[in-house]
Amino acid sequence: MSATHEERMARLALSCVVEPGDLQLAQLLETYCVEEIWERLRQDGPPGAWRNRAHALNLEHVTQQAQKAAARFVIPGDAQWPAALGDLAAADPVRDWGGTPLGLWVKGNGALGPMTRDAVSVVGARAASPYGERVAAELAGAAAERGCCVVSGAAYGIDAAAHRGALASQGSTVAVVAGGVDEAYPRAHRRLLDDIAESGCIVSEVRVGEHPTRRRFLVRNRLIAALSAGTVIVEASLRSGARNTASWATACGRVVMAVPGPVTSATSVTPHRLIREGEATLVTCIDDVLELIHPLGEVMPQRERRGRLLDSLSDQAKAVFEALPLRGGRDAGEISLRAGMPLPEVMAALVGLADAGWARPLSDGRWGLGPTSDRPVAEADTASYPESGRSLGEQAGF
Amino acid sequence: MSATHEERMARLALSCVVEPGDLQLAQLLETYCVEEIWERLRQDGPPGAWRNRAHALNLEHVTQQAQKAAARFVIPGDAQWPAALGDLAAADPVRDWGGTPLGLWVKGNGALGPMTRDAVSVVGARAASPYGERVAAELAGAAAERGCCVVSGAAYGIDAAAHRGALASQGSTVAVVAGGVDEAYPRAHRRLLDDIAESGCIVSEVRVGEHPTRRRFLVRNRLIAALSAGTVIVEASLRSGARNTASWATACGRVVMAVPGPVTSATSVTPHRLIREGEATLVTCIDDVLELIHPLGEVMPQRERRGRLLDSLSDQAKAVFEALPLRGGRDAGEISLRAGMPLPEVMAALVGLADAGWARPLSDGRWGLGPTSDRPVAEADTASYPESGRSLGEQAGF
Repeated sequence: MSATHEERMARLALSCVVEPGDLQLAQLLETYCVEEIWERLRQDGPPGAWRNRAHALNLEHVTQQAQKAAARFVIPGDAQWPAALGDLAAADPVRDWGGTPLGLWVKGNGALGPMTRDAVSVVGARAASPYGERVAAELAGAAAERGCCVVSGAAYGIDAAAHRGALASQGSTVAVVAGGVDEAYPRAHRRLLDDIAESGCIVSEVRVGEHPTRRRFLVRNRLIAALSAGTVIVEASLRSGARNTASWATACGRVVMAVPGPVTSATSVTPHRLIREGEATLVTCIDDVLELIHPLGEVMPQRERRGRLLDSLSDQAKAVFEALPLRGGRDAGEISLRAGMPLPEVMAALVGLADAGWARPLSDGRWGLGPTSDRPVAEADTASYPESGRSLGEQAGF
Repeated sequence: MSATHEERMARLALSCVVEPGDLQLAQLLETYCVEEIWERLRQDGPPGAWRNRAHALNLEHVTQQAQKAAARFVIPGDAQWPAALGDLAAADPVRDWGGTPLGLWVKGNGALGPMTRDAVSVVGARAASPYGERVAAELAGAAAERGCCVVSGAAYGIDAAAHRGALASQGSTVAVVAGGVDEAYPRAHRRLLDDIAESGCIVSEVRVGEHPTRRRFLVRNRLIAALSAGTVIVEASLRSGARNTASWATACGRVVMAVPGPVTSATSVTPHRLIREGEATLVTCIDDVLELIHPLGEVMPQRERRGRLLDSLSDQAKAVFEALPLRGGRDAGEISLRAGMPLPEVMAALVGLADAGWARPLSDGRWGLGPTSDRPVAEADTASYPESGRSLGEQAGF
């Protein structure tokens, strides 16, 4: 089921006021809903940075910037919302940060929810060796060829090599960034980020125009970990942020993997240490990775989660899903005919399927498969809000 | 306590007649002593290869060859006998072979028993990469600097690199070979083997003059595994014999370690697989190795064994051991004075200490520390048999 408009606006506003990963907010959310928290903060919240920022917040400006950058705000309940992020709610904090994001700013033509189902994240050193970059690119390319989406940051070194490897194999990738989705950080990756957005997504917890900070990088790592079934660390020196991503992956119950390298290489120190200490499993190729994230016959957290998703569909929903066309759209009447179900039930099932990312309404009123829609997802979602020409600020009553 | 002359001769003769690792013999030894088995075989054994070989055996020739090659035959109960080999008795067979050796042919100036206490074996591919040879040499060199003896085969590649690395760091090594200790196999390693014998040992289960066979290589691997507290596999391709050594090490309750390398390297396939499958622990340097074979505060099989050895010493034996000089020798009277013990008790303790490798009688009648004797061990041991100018054959009554 979709979130209410009020909830959407409260999440958007709160996310502009509270730094990502704030555990105080996560604690408040255990008792109060986002609308309550935002309303209280906006009107008579306790003095402090949050209230000051809340009072200074110009939501209209935020949404204008977002529209200009073609960024959409995705929240829990949206078809594009990755269900896997829910695992962050129960994950232990890392460095006193954690929690589920209030929402995600997404830019790009990819459908974030379906893309990140069973994705693999490939992360590692900025100052990677030619060996590391080659392995990252080949691993990501092979993942793409198997239809497995690659998630990473957008840094120099392993991150960039992973995106490039997947893109070169006609795959689409998700770049989770620490600044706004319009920020090219580093600047030299402007074109790479454009390429990523062309078929995949750029994702951030902070609004368009915001700059990355050290904290935001570290808190961003939890999204990379949670948005994938497993994290592969290709190269990382002793004090690399990749260790932090590994900690998040462990906290989320994800598979942590590491690629070995020459023992003479400083950038293989962290992968070797993680493997040696049993915190990561050694992987050398995509088969090793897929075997771990989709084990046959063995129940792994990720597999459980997938199982739950499929099992959660009723027989009726499954029948409707089967009646969707592989390409293009089909109108609800025809789906009703094919599924042998009355139209109202078909409509209810379609809405449920759309929420889970299995189906999506097309702009012409017909319905298509979620992950293989025949037109860019971004248009549909951006078009669905702001509604009726009013700015987000106006809608929220500002 | 030392073995009887009859047992020594029976072991020597049997080892010339039965192929190493024969489980039938191991089974017989559970019921009969070696003297019984040999006597029965020599006189009226059941027809077959063993009896045929027993009847054809010319022990005089065997011992003449051994003397010429400066090889000594070491058996359980000798000071030089490595107590660790006892673990082979309980080890599960690998490829239907196994068991404790009847004796070992040893060539070289090293004291095998003390040398192999807490040794580390370094094994791997014949067709090693320059990376693998460099890592093996550095690891063995670092082991030698820490006073840790290196055990390996004598093959091209990792074996040779390990010996060379240790020798270059003034360490002494043990080469366990599949043919006779005088065989240079490969021939190009004649000089390397001479260098090994200079300060360490060349060890074999088969008599001087025998050639290596495929079976002998595989059965030899159990000695490499058992003679060290842990085995490090540096490089090995998919079908390398190093996997066999790893299996033996596991069967003997030893620590199995593997050095990672580039995932693009065929010679790192087996180390990576062993690590990935939990059969080996990843190591990158000598500190990693020593931490595993001498863990602090954790009881490991090897540590237990060492503990047993030390604990097996009585308080009196410990007092005598403390009274031994760090260098050179001390006569029993002076040791008696220093230990504050009567001479007969000191003598009994010294014999016990010599059996366990902690002390050794010097040629001038004085006693020294076992592993740090002031003259080559080989002289003392070779001199102790054959006795009184008679050949071994004569002594055995042939």
